[in-house]
Parts: sequence; structure tokens; C-alpha cells
Amino acid sequence: AAAGGTRTVTLIPGDGIGPEISNSVKKIFAAAKVPIAWDEVDVTPVKGPDGQFRIPQKAIDSVNKHGIGLKGPLATPVGKGHRSLNLALRKEFNLYANVRPCRSLEGYPTPYKNVDLVTIRENTEGEYSGIEHIIVDGVVQSIKLITETASRRVAKFAFEFALREGRRKVTAVHKANIMRLSDGLFLKCCREEAHKHPGVEFAEAYLDTVCLNMVQDPTQFDVLVMPNLYGDILSDLCAGLVGGLGVTPSGNIGESGAIFESVHGTAPDIAGKDLANPTALLLSGVMMLRHMQLGEFADRIEKACLDSIGDGRARTKDLGGGATCSQFTDTICSRRASAM
Amino acid sequence: AAAGGTRTVTLIPGDGIGPEISNSVKKIFAAAKVPIAWDEVDVTPVKGPDGQFRIPQKAIDSVNKHGIGLKGPLATPVGKGHRSLNLALRKEFNLYANVRPCRSLEGYPTPYKNVDLVTIRENTEGEYSGIEHIIVDGVVQSIKLITETASRRVAKFAFEFALREGRRKVTAVHKANIMRLSDGLFLKCCREEAHKHPGVEFAEAYLDTVCLNMVQDPTQFDVLVMPNLYGDILSDLCAGLVGGLGVTPSGNIGESGAIFESVHGTAPDIAGKDLANPTALLLSGVMMLRHMQLGEFADRIEKACLDSIGDGRARTKDLGGGATCSQFTDTICSRRASAM
Ligand SMILES: CC(C)[C@H](C(=O)O)[C@@H](O)C(=O)O
Ligand SMILES: CC(C)[C@H](C(=O)O)[C@@H](O)C(=O)O
Repeated sequence: AAAGGTRTVTLIPGDGIGPEISNSVKKIFAAAKVPIAWDEVDVTPVKGPDGQFRIPQKAIDSVNKHGIGLKGPLATPVGKGHRSLNLALRKEFNLYANVRPCRSLEGYPTPYKNVDLVTIRENTEGEYSGIEHIIVDGVVQSIKLITETASRRVAKFAFEFALREGRRKVTAVHKANIMRLSDGLFLKCCREEAHKHPGVEFAEAYLDTVCLNMVQDPTQFDVLVMPNLYGDILSDLCAGLVGGLGVTPSGNIGESGAIFESVHGTAPDIAGKDLANPTALLLSGVMMLRHMQLGEFADRIEKACLDSIGDGRARTKDLGGGATCSQFTDTICSRRASAM
Repeated sequence: AAAGGTRTVTLIPGDGIGPEISNSVKKIFAAAKVPIAWDEVDVTPVKGPDGQFRIPQKAIDSVNKHGIGLKGPLATPVGKGHRSLNLALRKEFNLYANVRPCRSLEGYPTPYKNVDLVTIRENTEGEYSGIEHIIVDGVVQSIKLITETASRRVAKFAFEFALREGRRKVTAVHKANIMRLSDGLFLKCCREEAHKHPGVEFAEAYLDTVCLNMVQDPTQFDVLVMPNLYGDILSDLCAGLVGGLGVTPSGNIGESGAIFESVHGTAPDIAGKDLANPTALLLSGVMMLRHMQLGEFADRIEKACLDSIGDGRARTKDLGGGATCSQFTDTICSRRASAM
């Protein structure tokens, strides 16, 4: 479905503020003349003939066909047995590396300046294995599953990412002093990949120590790679340093596909009120463009976004500004136009 | 071993800077006329007749006899199969609640003001169960073990602690959206204890969200209770907000004993150079005094310590000051004397 160099991307607008912020991204991409077309799909699970809820086949087919998607926030269905839809998508397409860059925003009031780091989270196993047992009443075990295949894959990804993005250092984050076998295996894979990538500095650090050092001086970190849960925690911590989940993008990368998503909530309280902040989704789109080798478009849109937040014109309420979602969009669109 | 109301406390000076900072605490306690005597023991593991290394029986007997101890940092023995001695002690005496208060220090440069919170960490199970298996080559599992007994015990402790210390709110920190059974059980116990303690406000929050909110505004938190690993992470994060492990005290509380300890490292690089900062151990001693119902002594020593850091006279190098360990000690001793 590509005409004249145009490539198609699956768009999952999502719930709550999802449609608004997706619209904003579509408008900005159009203004920037990004050569992509959107295939918009709904992933709300539907009941199959067997009574089970499933992501609609149409949505799955779209991602499989195009190999790339942009996704807004999804509400987790209420009721027992439903795991998060966000997670279901990561699993469905085996998106093994969760990449979350974290940079200080000009014009956003935080004591943390010059933050520029990336957390890379193993995205398929670990504490998210979903394997749990009740041994006897009142005694439960959850299994953290670490495999050499998945650990090596994400470690390799981290070093290649560092090289590709011109980054200096990769830090493996672990608790192998406690989980000697599981985190030990993860760490071993990181060390071996470090050995294969002598051009990138390697460090290893305990998760607790990283958290402590992170809040004292995040500028000491560059790329960090770690098992699933640690990435969940650390990426949120880092987001908090620079303005929260409303401004931090993410990408879930697999062997044959990638989905870029804003990881904030659906914010039902402000949905439809033109108050939402599209930054996280827009910057996720920027990551997506780079991934698609459309770096020139990425750079321009990113600059327009960051500059407009910096000078206050695209600063929404959550960032202490007064811009509506539409004003955010219009500002960036016109800035884009003038920069063309 | 109590003469004239004097009670005996086991002192484990520890390694590296341990002896120096323990000396400092002993001097300050003596200057403050605290009615305790020290039974100093060495916990360095010794090889038994079976070739296994064990904590010396004399040390174990001392803690069991006195039921209370103060402990400096311990070096982890190098070599396979050695788990941290710090952990071994927590296990040996079944010290199920790890209590780490975290308060902003007057005079220490950090953007975080008015922090005043306490993390309470389950200290006996969870991710620290030590149960791990190699399933096949390259596939490892670690078991997170959560029991109703241990969860309820620490949840109950948290609410009683909040009441005793006049605190407003307890937040249960979890990832029950991912580990539904294990964290779910922990959360259920917290909810039930909340129900039994209507005088204390109760909240529950995801660990990742807590980390994000913590770095944005730690003053929104009060008492936090959580499984073992989450406490390890969050307590270090919080320590980072107020000056690091050199200034944050801790207590490990059990049914029949308690050990208060500074959780920083042994700092071999500065050991013996009169540069160490005794604050964490001294404030752990202050917690111990409160636990022993010697609150008056605790209050006075704490005030002398905080005031002397505040006015810079007891600010050691790690806090950006110029005080030696001896000057720290002398300053607080003389302040104590003048306050008597
Ligand atoms: C929504 C939730 C299940 C998810 C996670 O725990 O991974 C989220 O916190 C994230 O970081 O994407
Ligand atoms: C020394 C280490 C094993 C320990 C832990 O992981 O609990 C430490 O980080 C702590 O917080 O007391």
C-alpha cells in the first residue's frame, strides 16, 4: 500500500485522550509532508466464538503487514483475567526491546538539567512471565524467567543502538547479588556483548544504586539495559526527572516489527476537552520516523516540538502552560511550515 | 547485664569505616549519658568443623541475649556461595520489617525540601527467597515467594508504626497488575490491615508510578510498605533525594529482636583516614534508642546531630563540608553537653 514512496503505518489511536493526541500527530505529520499513510485500527478486544476476548484480527494483520505502528494509550479492560492490552501487543509481536529516551526539556521547570539517557528494557520475559502458582493457601510464588536468548538479544540491541546513535556507554542494571542465577545470566550476556563491542564503554550497577545515583545526578548515565521489571521502574523514575510520561516517548522493537507508543494513561478526566498534551505521542512518532530512516523529517518535527515547548507556545497545562491541544498542534504545524 | 538501669546492646562495628563511625557513636552516647553498655562482637564468618563458614556463635548469642543491636557496614566475603552478611543477619534473627526513615537535612544542598517519609520493607522473603533453578541450559527461573503470614505481619507493623509515630497515611506499593497472585496477596493483606486501622489513611500505588511521583514531589508520601525488592529500590531512591546512604538510618525489626544499621558501604578507600561520616550510624542509634523507649536521649542526640550538620560544623566531606570524623564527634559531644 505504498504510492510514490509513501509507506503505510498502523495507527492505534487508543482510548481517552488517544484520539485527540493522534489527531494532533496526524496533522503535524501532514504539515511536515511526511511520506507516510495511516492505517487506523481499533484494538479493543472482541469476544470470539469460544467466548474468549481477543485483539481484532484486522489490527493484528495491519501491524504484521506494515511492520510498524504508532499507538496511543489503551484502557485496561476491567475484570479478572484481563492483562494489560499494552502488554498483550508487546507479546503478540514479540517486541523484545523497549526503548525509552529521556531528555530534559527546555522550558520545563525541573531541577534536572542536561538529562540525556535511554533506558532499554527487556520486554518479553523476566518478572512479566505471567507464571504464578498458589503453593498452598497463603503461599504464592511468581516466577521470574530469564533466558539466554532474550537476554543476549536485548543486550546486543543495546550495544548496537549505542553505536548507531553515537552514544558512549552502556550500563547493565541488575541485582545479581541477590538473584545470582537469573540476573547473573542476564549480566553474563551483557558482559559478552560488551566484549564484542569494544567501541562502547561498559558498566554494570545494582538497580538500587542506580536509583540513588539517578536522582543525585542523572547526567552520569547514557544507555541503560536491564530486565523487564527494572526497566518498568527505572524508565518511570527517569521520566519523572524531566516532566513525566506526558513528554517521554517510547518504542517497542522486535525482529519483524516495531510499535512506538506514548506510555501515559488515557486521562479520561480530560478526554475530549482539548487539554491533552500530545508530546509523548509526537516524540514517539519522531522515534518511529528515525526507525524508518526518515531522520530528516524526524529532526525537523522534533525541533519544532521542543522549540515550541521551550518558548511556551506549545506548553500545555500539565507542563504549567496555557496551550490547548489544538494550539499545541497549530503552533508546531506553522513552525514546521516556516522551517520548510 | 544491666547495672543501675543500664541495658546492654550488641555492637557490630563492621568493616572499613565501621570501627571509626562506631567509635563516634560510642563517644556521643557516652557524652549524652545514655544508660546503655555495649557488647562489642565480630561477625566475620569463621570456618566450622564441617568446612562451612558461619557467623560466630558468640555474636549470635549476644544478639539473642540482649535482643537489640547496632551495626556498622559489613564487607561481603568474596567468592562463590557467599550471600551478603547483612542479609544473613536479617535472616538469622527473623527481622521481618526493614524501616528506613528519610528526611531532608537542613544545610544539605538538594532540590528536595521537607521530605519526611518512611519506607517499610518486608525483609524475609519475596525476591530474596534465594530459590533459583536452571531449567535447562540458558533458561533460569528465580522464585519470588510471598506468604500471607509475612505480608500480614509487615502490613500490620506498618499501620502500628504509623499510629505510634503519629503518621497520617500508609501507601502499599506493588505491581499486582503484573504479579497478580504474589503482589495480589501482599496487597490483600495491606487492605485488610488498613481496614483494621481506620485511624490511618490508606492508599495503594504501582511501584513505577511511585518512583515517578517520588522524584517529582516526595512530600506527598508518608509511610510506604512493600515487598522486599521494591523496598530495596525505593529506599535507595529516597535516600538519594536527601543526601545518600551516608545520612539515612535504618532498623531491622523482628518479634524478639532488632538490629539498627547504617546501610552504606564500608568505604575502604577512606577507612582509617578520619574522613568517614557517622551520621547514618548515629541516626540508626537514635532509632534504636526510641525503640528502647529512651526517646528523650534520642531526641537530644538527634537534634545535636542535625543542628551540627545544619550549621556546617559537623558536615563531613561527602556532604560538601570540611569536618573530619573526629570533629563531627566532638562538635556533637560538646553540643550535647551544653544542651544538658
Ligand atoms: C501498563 C503497565 C502494565 C505497563 C508495565 O508495567 O509495563 C506500564 O507501566 C509500562 O511501563 O508500559
Ligand atoms: C547489600 C545488599 C545485599 C542489600 C540488599 O539488597 O538488600 C542492600 O542493598 C540493602 O538495601 O540493605
